[in-house]
Amino acid sequence: MRGNSFGKMISITSFGESHGVGIGVVVDGVPPGLDFSLEDLAAELKRRAPGQVAGTTARKESDLPEVLSGVFENKTLGTPIAVLIRNTNQRSGDYDKLKDNYRPGHADETTMKKFGIRDHRGGGRSSGRETIARVIGGYFASLIIPKIKVKGFMTKMGPFEAEVPANIDEDCSPYHFPIKGKEKEIRDYLLNLKKEGESRGGKATIIARGVPAGWGEPAFDKLKADLAKGLLSIGAVVSFSFGLGEKMADLDGSVVSEKRENFGGIEGGISNGDDITLNVTFKPTSTVGDKAKEGRHDPCIIPRAIPVVEAMVKLVLADHYLRQNAYEF
Amino acid sequence: MRGNSFGKMISITSFGESHGVGIGVVVDGVPPGLDFSLEDLAAELKRRAPGQVAGTTARKESDLPEVLSGVFENKTLGTPIAVLIRNTNQRSGDYDKLKDNYRPGHADETTMKKFGIRDHRGGGRSSGRETIARVIGGYFASLIIPKIKVKGFMTKMGPFEAEVPANIDEDCSPYHFPIKGKEKEIRDYLLNLKKEGESRGGKATIIARGVPAGWGEPAFDKLKADLAKGLLSIGAVVSFSFGLGEKMADLDGSVVSEKRENFGGIEGGISNGDDITLNVTFKPTSTVGDKAKEGRHDPCIIPRAIPVVEAMVKLVLADHYLRQNAYEF
Amino acid sequence: MRGNSFGKMISITSFGESHGVGIGVVVDGVPPGLDFSLEDLAAELKRRAPGQVAGTTARKESDLPEVLSGVFENKTLGTPIAVLIRNTNQRSGDYDKLKDNYRPGHADETTMKKFGIRDHRGGGRSSGRETIARVIGGYFASLIIPKIKVKGFMTKMGPFEAEVPANIDEDCSPYHFPIKGKEKEIRDYLLNLKKEGESRGGKATIIARGVPAGWGEPAFDKLKADLAKGLLSIGAVVSFSFGLGEKMADLDGSVVSEKRENFGGIEGGISNGDDITLNVTFKPTSTVGDKAKEGRHDPCIIPRAIPVVEAMVKLVLADHYLRQNAYEF
Amino acid sequence: MRGNSFGKMISITSFGESHGVGIGVVVDGVPPGLDFSLEDLAAELKRRAPGQVAGTTARKESDLPEVLSGVFENKTLGTPIAVLIRNTNQRSGDYDKLKDNYRPGHADETTMKKFGIRDHRGGGRSSGRETIARVIGGYFASLIIPKIKVKGFMTKMGPFEAEVPANIDEDCSPYHFPIKGKEKEIRDYLLNLKKEGESRGGKATIIARGVPAGWGEPAFDKLKADLAKGLLSIGAVVSFSFGLGEKMADLDGSVVSEKRENFGGIEGGISNGDDITLNVTFKPTSTVGDKAKEGRHDPCIIPRAIPVVEAMVKLVLADHYLRQNAYEF
Repeated sequence: MRGNSFGKMISITSFGESHGVGIGVVVDGVPPGLDFSLEDLAAELKRRAPGQVAGTTARKESDLPEVLSGVFENKTLGTPIAVLIRNTNQRSGDYDKLKDNYRPGHADETTMKKFGIRDHRGGGRSSGRETIARVIGGYFASLIIPKIKVKGFMTKMGPFEAEVPANIDEDCSPYHFPIKGKEKEIRDYLLNLKKEGESRGGKATIIARGVPAGWGEPAFDKLKADLAKGLLSIGAVVSFSFGLGEKMADLDGSVVSEKRENFGGIEGGISNGDDITLNVTFKPTSTVGDKAKEGRHDPCIIPRAIPVVEAMVKLVLADHYLRQNAYEF
Repeated sequence: MRGNSFGKMISITSFGESHGVGIGVVVDGVPPGLDFSLEDLAAELKRRAPGQVAGTTARKESDLPEVLSGVFENKTLGTPIAVLIRNTNQRSGDYDKLKDNYRPGHADETTMKKFGIRDHRGGGRSSGRETIARVIGGYFASLIIPKIKVKGFMTKMGPFEAEVPANIDEDCSPYHFPIKGKEKEIRDYLLNLKKEGESRGGKATIIARGVPAGWGEPAFDKLKADLAKGLLSIGAVVSFSFGLGEKMADLDGSVVSEKRENFGGIEGGISNGDDITLNVTFKPTSTVGDKAKEGRHDPCIIPRAIPVVEAMVKLVLADHYLRQNAYEF
Repeated sequence: MRGNSFGKMISITSFGESHGVGIGVVVDGVPPGLDFSLEDLAAELKRRAPGQVAGTTARKESDLPEVLSGVFENKTLGTPIAVLIRNTNQRSGDYDKLKDNYRPGHADETTMKKFGIRDHRGGGRSSGRETIARVIGGYFASLIIPKIKVKGFMTKMGPFEAEVPANIDEDCSPYHFPIKGKEKEIRDYLLNLKKEGESRGGKATIIARGVPAGWGEPAFDKLKADLAKGLLSIGAVVSFSFGLGEKMADLDGSVVSEKRENFGGIEGGISNGDDITLNVTFKPTSTVGDKAKEGRHDPCIIPRAIPVVEAMVKLVLADHYLRQNAYEF
Repeated sequence: MRGNSFGKMISITSFGESHGVGIGVVVDGVPPGLDFSLEDLAAELKRRAPGQVAGTTARKESDLPEVLSGVFENKTLGTPIAVLIRNTNQRSGDYDKLKDNYRPGHADETTMKKFGIRDHRGGGRSSGRETIARVIGGYFASLIIPKIKVKGFMTKMGPFEAEVPANIDEDCSPYHFPIKGKEKEIRDYLLNLKKEGESRGGKATIIARGVPAGWGEPAFDKLKADLAKGLLSIGAVVSFSFGLGEKMADLDGSVVSEKRENFGGIEGGISNGDDITLNVTFKPTSTVGDKAKEGRHDPCIIPRAIPVVEAMVKLVLADHYLRQNAYEF
């Protein structure tokens, strides 16, 4: 009931503080006999690793995640899969000065109010490092729904804004920005933010292609509701919408009804077979000012957060796939 | 696993099709010894009843909800509270013509694809009538957190737009629009929509005042995540945000950090003691054209949906109150 | 979290006090398109109805359960199925004398200590009447696993003792005692108990035939664990075992290993394809002395409890069938 | 839904195969600020470690469990506590001969039928090693209910039989047999079993002292039901009863009602403030014959299983304590 588990048929139970021994996850409900690749998992984790974005330095992390259980001879066993990534780059030194360092918009103060105790050496459970657990879970979810493509894009950040491209298969790394050739501009923009101790949020759009009609439940576990929960469970996410989303407020019903794609692949809470299109807003990272100029802080979290939002979407979809499958004979 | 239950410590299990015997709910986890008032419950239900909004006619509903269990001598027993409202105004006649009437944006077609069967006489589980269960649940939730005020406002609809007022206690019925004296204008606008067989969506803002710091959990069951799930589980809701929400995408971190109220009462997923401010977008109702001109169809659902969004927020808050209380000694 | 729901893929949420409006249940997770028969459901309920056992009088109950939702034109819709049976034979009169009537072994006193309030007109939630909800749930579970035969027998009661017969299909009503021709003797025995204000418990054995290998989970949700929970959730049940059960304590491992049937169809917590054999002990009913001589009290609950234990077994099996099916592609 | 988690307010999620990297657990729902002692945890684990019982050799295990999260400066943080114990004594060599080694009464064959794949090097998830996770969970549960004493005894094994003593505080290790001075006899008996490649089951009785009235829920989550589930989730347990248990089948209601202690501390599924007395039967261990003569196999599992049954009882009690506390204001 402390909410460290997510999902029903496939669930992840996340553990670990940012400055403790490590971050880990137990993924339960992965079917037996699926092919596991440590390289693929590591590659997925690398997409969210620090140090890829302009102006930040890599936190030296253990090279590979350690799979503690649930995989045997590169096949899933159907048993819980535990994966651990140790924290290896903890800053040494005087943490006591951080004891009362409460960043606005962050969990520092509310954690203290809630628990009366916290690991003040870092963000604890509310650190971005906890999202490692989600990316690992997303990797295993993708094994369950191999035909479904989930792809996230940074569709707005500072002066940069773009629509999702028709071809979602192209590689847009490292910024996941849909327009090619903008990498240098974005990089310079981020470097400048960094220099000024400033931060930015922005928007991401996620496409899930290949979801058949019929996933999601009619009442509370609507697909849109579970996707919203999964995405809002990410620290920096402050809004969620699907399809036309907020634009729906400005349109006549007759206009909205014209094109099925306005509904973003979800009607009545259930997938309709179309592309599912989701939008989220990220707030600017909480650390600003001199502290933000230190190497490890991201001036914008979106590029590194894209694999995390993709993972949460994959987890929700795999869960609803298994739920629907339970009732099909 | 069919997702007809919502909540953990206090849960509602909803049942009933729009054109079946009735709509009902089992509310489990209401503490014993709380004062129950059938009048208050009926009054709350009346707020979402049809026929209050310009141009619509009341669906004749049973005058009073029937409490089937869990209440004795006007006190809650701590046992499950079942409440039933019978459907009394079902249209008679030839439903067969509705069999293939799939409204865009509605669950008609996806339900058929999912279940291979549906009660084609109406929206079934996806009808707005299902929200009766939520309003009943919200009433009981409010008994658990009597000091918390949850109030929803229609902040945008067609040409009408307004901020939430500082004083949230004023009665803004029947449209829940914050600016006084606009009732006639709104009424005329709605009547005109109705006449044209048109529909509109819009926006609502919900304030939860009096929530102490410390509710919500650090990882997946963040308060914002559970609120998002609860609100997106409402059929017509297509977006969710809290605090500055989507506006966060356009602001520098240093600006966002200046005022704690930008975070809408939730930091790190946990309440910080401030007003919680939530925003949702409603899509236009799915029925347009000649059919929409019939008496019972709402040209805009927001006024009747306000009690529903309030109910979902109350349920989430009461749940997290009980969750937090479990660990306090 | 008040524990009024049971099951995961198929769940029952039970409500109702013995002297309130009625007893009901919401059955969620029944697949769509299954054939429903009100007659079959009523027949199943009749098997647990009062007044069949010697010396007791029927509590006049509504003739038929009322299906409130989830069934349309005698097909299940895949939506929650709510069923209500009204209490029609409530004793009128002075209930106040019952306020402090705490029967040993019954929930009267512990309910008061737990909740600080109770419906003192009867057993409330702890009344045997609550088991109506389970029998209804068991009926719907049996629709999901139509090839599995679940049959309970009274294998011990007073001087009567018998093994389960090889042919489990024979009708042993009304006492569910395996040896034919003993009905009169049992009847006389019960009548005598009744006359003396005495009560008896005994034992029941349940056979589940046709369960394929592979149901149940390796760790906590072992089939035996979930069956134990389901059966011990019945008020009068005080012991559970499967296969050789308690006899295992007196045998060498080499002897036990000789015959697979010693394991009662469950190895490592997972069904092995054999008959599943379960044993439970019932305590004597709590009401003894002059009060027990009143017409409605059963001197032995087992005959009426057999449909209840069968129902719980069916619910557990249907749940694990759906769980296993979720992971099979 | 693979059943690797147990508990609601405090839950354990167990992972690890017997011959994989290690066995671990995530304990979620431990309140913040409790004093943690690695020494106490290690001592508890030592009670179930191999090699204490006559004739068996210790499997060399890592000296200390590794706490991966949730504890900071020897205080619980309120965050999930992950603990890992590595498998260090894996037999090397040719495991292929074990591929089709299906022991009767064990999970070998049913696991294969269920999953179609297994880690054939050992018992996998069904190994006794998985119970490490439970003992760790039980340790943290005991921090939540420090005033409650849970003590298990081996009350029957081969020719040895004894009642639970009035004073449950005395140390009865290593065999947990209530009669002092029998250690040598038991040891010789076990050595002889071992020599003959034989195994034995037996019975255990568990006392929970200090549980206040009011824990447990009226319907499905009766205290006896949750205890039954917890104890039957242990591989070797084949029966459960509380209070007089099976003896209830042979007694008149008037006799049973005479003494409240006959009900074993649970009335109506809810604790009544008395000692809770539980009985379980263990089957003989599955390995017999020449293989059983190898050093690491236990001829009787009960002495090592006592800490495991105690742990499951502690987990259930702590869970119900927190559940009850949630509704008390």
